[in-house]
Amino acid sequence: MRVLVALGGNAMTGPDGSATPQAQRAAIAVASEHLADLVAAGHEVVVTHGNGPQVGNLLVKNELAAHVVPPVPLDWCGAQTQGTIGFTLLDTLEASLAARGAERPVAAIVTRTLVAADDPGFTRPTKPIGRFLPREQAQALIDHGERWEDRGEKGWRRVVASPEPIEVLETPTLLTLLGAGYVVVAAGGGGIPVVRSASGAVHGVEAVIDKDLTAALLARAVGADVLVIATDVPYAVAGWGTPDAHDIGRVTLAEMESYAAAGHFASGSMGPKIDAAMRFVRAGGSRSIVTALDQLATAIDGHIGTVIENPERER
Amino acid sequence: MRVLVALGGNAMTGPDGSATPQAQRAAIAVASEHLADLVAAGHEVVVTHGNGPQVGNLLVKNELAAHVVPPVPLDWCGAQTQGTIGFTLLDTLEASLAARGAERPVAAIVTRTLVAADDPGFTRPTKPIGRFLPREQAQALIDHGERWEDRGEKGWRRVVASPEPIEVLETPTLLTLLGAGYVVVAAGGGGIPVVRSASGAVHGVEAVIDKDLTAALLARAVGADVLVIATDVPYAVAGWGTPDAHDIGRVTLAEMESYAAAGHFASGSMGPKIDAAMRFVRAGGSRSIVTALDQLATAIDGHIGTVIENPERER
Repeated sequence: MRVLVALGGNAMTGPDGSATPQAQRAAIAVASEHLADLVAAGHEVVVTHGNGPQVGNLLVKNELAAHVVPPVPLDWCGAQTQGTIGFTLLDTLEASLAARGAERPVAAIVTRTLVAADDPGFTRPTKPIGRFLPREQAQALIDHGERWEDRGEKGWRRVVASPEPIEVLETPTLLTLLGAGYVVVAAGGGGIPVVRSASGAVHGVEAVIDKDLTAALLARAVGADVLVIATDVPYAVAGWGTPDAHDIGRVTLAEMESYAAAGHFASGSMGPKIDAAMRFVRAGGSRSIVTALDQLATAIDGHIGTVIENPERER
Repeated sequence: MRVLVALGGNAMTGPDGSATPQAQRAAIAVASEHLADLVAAGHEVVVTHGNGPQVGNLLVKNELAAHVVPPVPLDWCGAQTQGTIGFTLLDTLEASLAARGAERPVAAIVTRTLVAADDPGFTRPTKPIGRFLPREQAQALIDHGERWEDRGEKGWRRVVASPEPIEVLETPTLLTLLGAGYVVVAAGGGGIPVVRSASGAVHGVEAVIDKDLTAALLARAVGADVLVIATDVPYAVAGWGTPDAHDIGRVTLAEMESYAAAGHFASGSMGPKIDAAMRFVRAGGSRSIVTALDQLATAIDGHIGTVIENPERER
């Protein structure tokens, strides 16, 4: 099967959320072991990943060094994390594959994702990113054109556009490499956000794309059989925090839509993952899985995880 | 012909050396116009690029934000610049190609370059990088394991290993994409330096690889017909600054070796470019050119530039 796995940004930091290079590398090495199991089992694998903690660090650097070196925009921060996470995945995936005798080549490509210049996110940014700052420091950045919001006790926080992904521009490159037998790392951080101008040329924009929504789009574009959204719990939970709480196993799209409509999934955490998982199936994909990273292979085999199936495409 | 072009890090900054994102993008757009001319003329093109000014900026950010977020090592800085420069080249090359009706696909790949763990550069680092600091600030970084040297009036400056590139690990990926008709951006900043451990696994190391030496190695590995080292002057000059100064045009390897042995090329600027150009021909390549970026197409056609030819491979 062709499988697209979306790793969370937090799957690439230490257990305490630490984003030192050492902690990132150690976490990525663990993720690579699970990914290599899929490859060793004979699956074609595309890997995408989040970059929230990493971009958070880059924004702090931007801010604290701004009096000496020019800050770079969010699209550049995303590109930077594709470099560092992509390179680390290359190293660790190769090692995990070699340990299994599954010597498939691995490539990491710089990937852009097209968004609409008139996406409502640009006029009403809603995605909080980076660290909290006291009002006075936030004001200095507001004066430079950034949008910050009062988040109460914790302080102020920047909000940015999180536009809808329309097309992963490097899809043909990805397909070329998949066709040549590669395990491909692509669209890190949801892809570098770009918009198309009237001339047809594209250029980066200040935004953050939800990596799971890009994963759903990309999974369709590359004809994936399964989209896996890897997180830190084996199942999405209905009625979380109530006496009726229960794991959600194998469901139809209609059943999952009912759960979502009833407000079972938190907007900042499980909600976007379930949304992306549903989108893939709604667009014609046969199966989406939301599960824990360390259950990847078991979940692909159908033994664990929250699974949304497209009845029309069941075997 | 298959042509590998190495762009200087300074070809990607403003005329005043400015490395703001805007200045970098504008400079890269100009470089892309010249590269697109080669593609439009029917050549297969591989692009590599330096990253000196960009890494310099990242090191300042590392330093000024170290009390809040963890600094990242040099290999990560290199990976970051492959992301930002690669992404910008994708945007601008596509636009320049479209303007010429030369709709070839473009890809940018995260690229690692193998170096030897026992390269003498690691015990005797010689490559100066980053900004000058007063002694006291340098001492704090020396206490953290970095090597800094007293550079006189300007202050202290960090020196790092600049090991010999041994193998560009993403060569097969590059060949796969070239074979599929792609213009490929690869091995930015000389490639992310990695060493191989006893287990066979590779991991990044704190070092900076000379991008022209990597370009010479890569040009051979991909079977390039020509290696072009793009700089800001049309010719290397013999006797520079003397009354006998003259441009060096078409020469044999033996002739160029004589010039180099006689000390005609400054070690910090033209020397490494000429060294890389000679290596390519010495290793069996048919032609190396050192010329100005804005003379690329003219130079490929043989009308300008310092050209080192391999007599055994002349047509």
